Amino acid sequence: MTQTNRDRNIIVTVDVVLFALHDKRLHVVLTRRPREPYAGQLALPGGYVHQQEDIDSLAAAVRVLRTKTGIAPPYLEQLYSFADGARDPRGWSVSLGYFALVDESVLRAAQSVEPGFGFELFDVSSVPRLSFDHNRIVDVALQRLRDKSAYSTLPCYLLPEQFTFAQVHETYEHVMGVALDKSAFRRKLTEMDVLEECKGQRVGGAHRPAQLFRVKTDLAHRLRLLDRPLAVPNPDKTATGLA
Amino acid sequence: MTQTNRDRNIIVTVDVVLFALHDKRLHVVLTRRPREPYAGQLALPGGYVHQQEDIDSLAAAVRVLRTKTGIAPPYLEQLYSFADGARDPRGWSVSLGYFALVDESVLRAAQSVEPGFGFELFDVSSVPRLSFDHNRIVDVALQRLRDKSAYSTLPCYLLPEQFTFAQVHETYEHVMGVALDKSAFRRKLTEMDVLEECKGQRVGGAHRPAQLFRVKTDLAHRLRLLDRPLAVPNPDKTATGLA
Repeated sequence: MTQTNRDRNIIVTVDVVLFALHDKRLHVVLTRRPREPYAGQLALPGGYVHQQEDIDSLAAAVRVLRTKTGIAPPYLEQLYSFADGARDPRGWSVSLGYFALVDESVLRAAQSVEPGFGFELFDVSSVPRLSFDHNRIVDVALQRLRDKSAYSTLPCYLLPEQFTFAQVHETYEHVMGVALDKSAFRRKLTEMDVLEECKGQRVGGAHRPAQLFRVKTDLAHRLRLLDRPLAVPNPDKTATGLA
Repeated sequence: MTQTNRDRNIIVTVDVVLFALHDKRLHVVLTRRPREPYAGQLALPGGYVHQQEDIDSLAAAVRVLRTKTGIAPPYLEQLYSFADGARDPRGWSVSLGYFALVDESVLRAAQSVEPGFGFELFDVSSVPRLSFDHNRIVDVALQRLRDKSAYSTLPCYLLPEQFTFAQVHETYEHVMGVALDKSAFRRKLTEMDVLEECKGQRVGGAHRPAQLFRVKTDLAHRLRLLDRPLAVPNPDKTATGLA
């Protein structure tokens, strides 16, 4: 039972599924791998944990995302850990998976810090074959995003700081992948009391300009979980336990 | 950016928070550490991932639990990964945390496979100081259990295969840590259609013997997630994003 060297050479990486809206559809940010394995192939932004540099796995995820894509997302949370002997040809490995949301304008402003790197955007409904088990990681992230969005203000992290009701409604629809009745959605959102009007801020033409909203100031940097769903994507889903 | 040896000696362990009911209260299973660090101290059942033996982290969790406590729980799922440079005095480490539920009768039958090992039960409301960051891991597991129980049949894994309505009601109360109105709870449970009567099976005296129920056969080894809460523990909870 004493630890042997063979038990201390497990590969430990962080991989981040970064979502953004683009052309009004939900996209995921991918990078090209600079070296083997899977050199030149598409993959999630990811990399080794650096013991000397990274205080914890969250810091590692922030560093990797900054280095590979130049992006610092306002929302980043641990997704799941993918840990087995088969997912990486180099040996037994752990991917500490994170998922993040960002407003498209941040993407546009982002510059890759590391020369030769950069990122590409792919519609979540047509993600190509990725390196390692990264397709599975994207699938798990997408499910988590949808489950959590139904009960929270999470999709608002995809929006700029100020947005119209039409934008937030559309964003929930894109994230959930379902049509949401506009007036029922507006009523629920009002009941939840999570948005506030930006006083005097309207956009659009002189005729019926649209009111701008933002997530309430005290909630701006927190995720608000709700006690009732804003939308129920799939009431009958089940999660498998160990038989 | 090439991997160096210093990046391939991160400690990778699995640690399991195993819950059971005992004296009608929710308890957690703890073991004594056989060696340094924290020799003789209480800790979660846990251990190193064995690359040669463990296909994946779930297999590692099952093996560690069997070896340290003799218990094979019917429900085991990944909780969260605790990964930083400070939680283990031996160096940068990852704990792949799992949580599990088991019927008390399985606990009583369990025998420790490894001589000198064994386990102790502690009421979740009075867990003593544990090794490493294991108190934090217990807290996270307890919160997950409560959140998930409100919307699922998860607490039924704490019960024997057949149980009375009084037992399931009491179990939800113990898990959630709140009183639940009996008739409202019965009505919701009926609407959810997750239990079935065990035909002809009743327990108790000759007067008004209680009907026995079980989780519906098609759901017996699956966790059923519900679209409405059976109980709402804390409607205003928030989760912090990255500011």
